[in-house]
Amino acid sequence: MLPRIAIHGGAGTILKSEMSAEKEEAYQWALQQALRRGFEVLHAKGSAVDAVAAAIISLEDCPLFNAGKGSVFNAEGRHEMDASIMSGENLSAGAITGVMNIKNPILLAKTVMLKSEHVFLMGEGAELFARKNHLDFEPDDYFYDEFRYQQWQKIKGTDAIALDHSREKKFGTVGAVAIDSLGNLAAGTSTGGMTNKRYGRIGDSPMIGAGTYANNATCAISCTGHGELFIRSVVAYDISCLMEYKRLSLKDACEMVVHDKLVKIGGEGGLIAIDKEGNIELPFNSEGMYRGWMGGIDDVKTEIYS
Amino acid sequence: MLPRIAIHGGAGTILKSEMSAEKEEAYQWALQQALRRGFEVLHAKGSAVDAVAAAIISLEDCPLFNAGKGSVFNAEGRHEMDASIMSGENLSAGAITGVMNIKNPILLAKTVMLKSEHVFLMGEGAELFARKNHLDFEPDDYFYDEFRYQQWQKIKGTDAIALDHSREKKFGTVGAVAIDSLGNLAAGTSTGGMTNKRYGRIGDSPMIGAGTYANNATCAISCTGHGELFIRSVVAYDISCLMEYKRLSLKDACEMVVHDKLVKIGGEGGLIAIDKEGNIELPFNSEGMYRGWMGGIDDVKTEIYS
Repeated sequence: MLPRIAIHGGAGTILKSEMSAEKEEAYQWALQQALRRGFEVLHAKGSAVDAVAAAIISLEDCPLFNAGKGSVFNAEGRHEMDASIMSGENLSAGAITGVMNIKNPILLAKTVMLKSEHVFLMGEGAELFARKNHLDFEPDDYFYDEFRYQQWQKIKGTDAIALDHSREKKFGTVGAVAIDSLGNLAAGTSTGGMTNKRYGRIGDSPMIGAGTYANNATCAISCTGHGELFIRSVVAYDISCLMEYKRLSLKDACEMVVHDKLVKIGGEGGLIAIDKEGNIELPFNSEGMYRGWMGGIDDVKTEIYS
Repeated sequence: MLPRIAIHGGAGTILKSEMSAEKEEAYQWALQQALRRGFEVLHAKGSAVDAVAAAIISLEDCPLFNAGKGSVFNAEGRHEMDASIMSGENLSAGAITGVMNIKNPILLAKTVMLKSEHVFLMGEGAELFARKNHLDFEPDDYFYDEFRYQQWQKIKGTDAIALDHSREKKFGTVGAVAIDSLGNLAAGTSTGGMTNKRYGRIGDSPMIGAGTYANNATCAISCTGHGELFIRSVVAYDISCLMEYKRLSLKDACEMVVHDKLVKIGGEGGLIAIDKEGNIELPFNSEGMYRGWMGGIDDVKTEIYS
């Protein structure tokens, strides 16, 4: 099996008319960097799980994306993060929600998958588990970004929430899916949530079945979009079920879920998908999605608009 | 459509040899009470959502079941609860995890569904939302139960966790599914988690798709079992997909998921299910499941063992 990887950095109202050449290049560069970090792992016969984690760590460490270092401010001015990862080989999974000061939430999700008897941990409990497992923490300063801070200042104290750092609908999430040389699939997703988020809101990103799913029998999926509608539609597992039970191709399953079922309920967003043959789909029903895929040293592509 | 309701009070190692006649009668009485509370709503032309909530409130208020008042002690000696509810009519849903001192978690989940733009809230944020919406809180004393306290004392300070109030595997959860006179389906689930639970563990009960799912096109499902395996198997939505995409009957879908797929991965537990024709299934692969259903004033049945 030739290994392949695909990533996303969020979907939404991403318009060329509102993007400077410098900013666009910065995004393209960051996506390429993440793809290469993930593909390096696959090229060295590493696992799909490790490749997905490596690509997502690269995106979490980049302030351009709403995850890890680039996480937005919640209503208390803090950075509350969610992440999940799943192995298609044995359906093992790990997820965390509402954690603060964790440098790489995807690594915590992976540690939950590998070292905990549980799948899903929240808040301070998840942070305690992270400390016991010697994961890296960072002070609040590490997550500070002037642009995101100003964005929060505009709506702080109001009931408004913003899904990412623009007034338009933008679903700030990062994710990766991969197939390794043994044919094992994996998927992972990480997010900093919504600007001015309150009430400990949990979106689809840390939810196995909704935002992330992987199964060697079908596909691996990572979503980005209007979380509440993605939860109610159990989007990631829906793609897998359409392939397994209705015998749809990955392409047809993605088409039905993203361009038909989600559109009908107003569920804006997209997803990245890879199947057991290594086919890749990157469908979205919003105006843009930061995305890319890589299947070889010169076989790499990144895109932003539709 | 003739309205019907089914409930469960948890599954696991429930053996007749270990149950006194008095205790068995207390459980049967409590199950009957919950069924009647739910069915009253349906009989008065109320909605499936309201019937499910009424039945679950009755179970949450009863100290015999691990939910609401009867919730077990976590590692800090507190009672941390989860709940979720979903309407099959419009796929709206509400869920909460890691909340304390809420009298009826299912009512909070329902309030999230009806009055929040979100689906899933956690911890203190969910409690703040509950206060703003004037839900009833109770002091820690309300949740105190001598038997559960002693159970916790036995494993307190160790790494051991217990899924419910016995040393054997027992999955303490309550749930209800219903169809109302308009043919609308609904499902709900509520739990007090695991004795000596740490790290803010989240099980399948509050997860839409895993522990709870409802869709008028297929069925309504509430699960009880080994939460981690139910999450990885996206159990509730899997039943729905097998009906919608593979055209299985409710009975065959339940058979495949509970007695084949879950058994193969060691996923002990069960679920209650109702389809759009009002067919009810109550499958479990453990030794017992507190369960019952009601379809008329004299058409009521409760069972405990297999």
